[in-house]
Amino acid sequence: MIAPVERAAVIDMGSNSFRLVVYGYVPGSWWSLTDEIREPVRISAGMGDSGELQAEPVERAIRTAGVFAAFCRASGVERVDAVATSAIRDADNGDELIEEIRRRTGLSVRVIDGDEEARYGWLAIANSTTLEEGFGIEMGGGSVQLMRMRGRDLEERVSLPLGSVRVSEAFLPGEKASAKAIRAVRKHVAEALAGLEWWQAGDTPRLVGIGGTVRNLAAAALKRGDNPDIDVQGFALTRDALDELIEELAERPASKRGGLRGIKPDRGDVILGGALVLAVAIDAGGFDAVEVSEAGLREGVFFEHLLDDREPPLFDDVRSESVINLSHRFQTDATHVHHVARLCAQLYDGLADAGAIERDRGARELLLAAGLLHDIGMTIDYDDHHRHSHYLILNTGLPGMTPRELVLVALISRYHRKGDPDASELGDLALEGDDDLVRLLAGMIRLAEQLERSRDQSVESLAVAADGDRVTITPRIATGASGDASVAIWSARRNADLLAAALGRDVDVAAA
Amino acid sequence: MIAPVERAAVIDMGSNSFRLVVYGYVPGSWWSLTDEIREPVRISAGMGDSGELQAEPVERAIRTAGVFAAFCRASGVERVDAVATSAIRDADNGDELIEEIRRRTGLSVRVIDGDEEARYGWLAIANSTTLEEGFGIEMGGGSVQLMRMRGRDLEERVSLPLGSVRVSEAFLPGEKASAKAIRAVRKHVAEALAGLEWWQAGDTPRLVGIGGTVRNLAAAALKRGDNPDIDVQGFALTRDALDELIEELAERPASKRGGLRGIKPDRGDVILGGALVLAVAIDAGGFDAVEVSEAGLREGVFFEHLLDDREPPLFDDVRSESVINLSHRFQTDATHVHHVARLCAQLYDGLADAGAIERDRGARELLLAAGLLHDIGMTIDYDDHHRHSHYLILNTGLPGMTPRELVLVALISRYHRKGDPDASELGDLALEGDDDLVRLLAGMIRLAEQLERSRDQSVESLAVAADGDRVTITPRIATGASGDASVAIWSARRNADLLAAALGRDVDVAAA
Repeated sequence: MIAPVERAAVIDMGSNSFRLVVYGYVPGSWWSLTDEIREPVRISAGMGDSGELQAEPVERAIRTAGVFAAFCRASGVERVDAVATSAIRDADNGDELIEEIRRRTGLSVRVIDGDEEARYGWLAIANSTTLEEGFGIEMGGGSVQLMRMRGRDLEERVSLPLGSVRVSEAFLPGEKASAKAIRAVRKHVAEALAGLEWWQAGDTPRLVGIGGTVRNLAAAALKRGDNPDIDVQGFALTRDALDELIEELAERPASKRGGLRGIKPDRGDVILGGALVLAVAIDAGGFDAVEVSEAGLREGVFFEHLLDDREPPLFDDVRSESVINLSHRFQTDATHVHHVARLCAQLYDGLADAGAIERDRGARELLLAAGLLHDIGMTIDYDDHHRHSHYLILNTGLPGMTPRELVLVALISRYHRKGDPDASELGDLALEGDDDLVRLLAGMIRLAEQLERSRDQSVESLAVAADGDRVTITPRIATGASGDASVAIWSARRNADLLAAALGRDVDVAAA
Repeated sequence: MIAPVERAAVIDMGSNSFRLVVYGYVPGSWWSLTDEIREPVRISAGMGDSGELQAEPVERAIRTAGVFAAFCRASGVERVDAVATSAIRDADNGDELIEEIRRRTGLSVRVIDGDEEARYGWLAIANSTTLEEGFGIEMGGGSVQLMRMRGRDLEERVSLPLGSVRVSEAFLPGEKASAKAIRAVRKHVAEALAGLEWWQAGDTPRLVGIGGTVRNLAAAALKRGDNPDIDVQGFALTRDALDELIEELAERPASKRGGLRGIKPDRGDVILGGALVLAVAIDAGGFDAVEVSEAGLREGVFFEHLLDDREPPLFDDVRSESVINLSHRFQTDATHVHHVARLCAQLYDGLADAGAIERDRGARELLLAAGLLHDIGMTIDYDDHHRHSHYLILNTGLPGMTPRELVLVALISRYHRKGDPDASELGDLALEGDDDLVRLLAGMIRLAEQLERSRDQSVESLAVAADGDRVTITPRIATGASGDASVAIWSARRNADLLAAALGRDVDVAAA
């Protein structure tokens, strides 16, 4: 029985762009984004100090809302949640716009205040990263939300009118960004942050950033290094890398800033303003870098709905939730992959107990994640399914893991069969020893997979013994197993080389 | 209601290797290979002129059969069809081996004769290529089957003891292949083919080759050129390219021939023998090249079962069957993609009728294939799903299409949204004008997709008019449509640029 997929749409009427996103989900199993329409409405364009949304952007906003509403009606999405943020809430005629949208399109839009905006930002961060103690910054077009988290809870929050569109329109009009104008932005932002005593890294120096400005800047930094072709989720944008980008953006005329790799063209004219705000905020709090999450306000709104049986609506463990979500989205044979993960754990623990490897919790977690995910490529094709698993993992991502960890899980899955492990795609993300780590963990999963080659759990568990230069792995057969262990032992013996090489010992697979 | 997936295993006990393959299928919907175990048993090793299978390879064969049988029992596959070919059928003690396998493993193996082997080869070729009039060659380890096809039917067939293992053992023992030994192979093969009057290209010069030797040689040739990273299905191995490979293989000692890119290591010692047989067979028939199909005996056996309601068991149209199979395997929203394909057809025909493009049946077919396949990447992830569709099409393939056509379908699907079409990955496969072709067809699908942006078929059909420098596309709205056409027209107008550029005309999308 396959549970029906439900769909929920979130419409985010931001200061830079309006966006409709649709999520598909099966409660308790998986969720994913299934459709998206983005329109750079730039609702606050031309407001200046008037406090009034101008006629042209208002017309764009209503037209776009009409398209979104028609889309939701036509596609029959079950639930629509539309929210408007800073630009509309702060305008004198924002309520009129909301009423006009309701009248002309039937769409009912909720204008959220800065506190709510920060709360959704927090839900996005807390459900897409491992941040427990630390800080968050949500960079919008109209406002910027700063947050401080304790024990995953939102302890402090503030919403400041320092959004990229707002700052750019006020301080950086025209093509050229003069040194004077840039100094004025910095001063303005620094003053706005001056009274915030809790915005201090102290002994919890992790800062997570969300919002288009942060995503774009991180993408630009990622593409400059020797990095694999992955999304920015979890990428750490350092203060130095940000300075380099600011320098390069400032040198270009505004109309060319969107041409920088990683920056969306229609964001080009406000990216410098956003980058300056971010840099000052980082400095003010004494941070070294900002970790990026791709989740945002929209996910916050969606998570509140998805997890509405929890208070607060937070996943228990973001990393394992990501692995489980991915394994459910591309499920082939759940019993098999869970059993392979179990055998991987026994092999890892057995080798550690026997002194053949050094125990490392992080490495063990990566191995188990690959245990659950190694076969997801079979949903693409059996041939080369190890390569397809690698592709799927890199392209869908594992929020909560760092980019390095994501690539490691993809590599271990890639090398669960065939080929000599090569970790070079890690590039700048590699830590010392990662080559050996991939070889060792791939060697383990390769053997565990073969012990479950006939996919029937005949090999119930395994025991590990080490003696001098030799490691002996003894499979135990399930009583009443449908098959015998002949396939498992035959296959495992032919696939022990990689583990043997990684351990620098002979590896024997004993008769059951 | 999702139809249950059935599974059928085919065990192929060939002269070079034994192979177990498992196919998953839903009759009338889709099929694909879902598991595979290959073991280079080399059953005829060491026979010499004795006519007797030797003890060691017999033991390997029984052990491998035991593993395969245990696998089938354990995994609960519904249907197992085991066949043995030349090496076992020609050995004096082949029947004893079959009996011993039955006794010790419970597996019942059918020894097929040369005629049946050729018949399965024909079913593989006729169901995986567009060959209607022409020739086929199946290169096994023990025997080679030659076929002539008329109206897709098998008109002539012969099985000759010229398999790669047999020829290599007889003429090319040891590390070095002397010029004299190579001449002896050529002479032996030429003599064996001398009496075959029907083996003449004449006015039906298409030759399709199957079997591991052909696949490996084609892969080696493919990897040498500037070619995309695709499988060899449909690749034409020219006589010249084959000669180059023979030269290079002959220069290497036998133990290094498996190191040539594209050649499987355990085939290295017999690949030269196989290549020589292939070259002489091509020359004897007066062919220029051999087109490769990846299907083989195993698929022939499977197709006979899958299509057992047909006589002969042939797909009506291999190309459209491939497109439909792929679209069913990665089905997202069948109603939507069929509607997009329909709008693509109307757009193509409308532009041709209006004189804005030149009508070309082949191009239209590629467009419609992309129409059905452009969204299959959504099974991976919505973000970048156009890239994922491209990946899936290239990695699963479309039997019946040439490699160039496959890449074109993948590219048109890739550019159904975002990005400026770039056909450079075609490399050596490109024909003149392919850049423009991709741009034109991507322009069409991009527009058709937007006219169905809300996925509700509100835009039932479209009309095309051309007037001077301007093409006008007028959508017609379905009566009683759930939505209006506002999303469609709004989206289409914003995505008409690519088509306009390709046509060199303005493209207007009129109000409905």
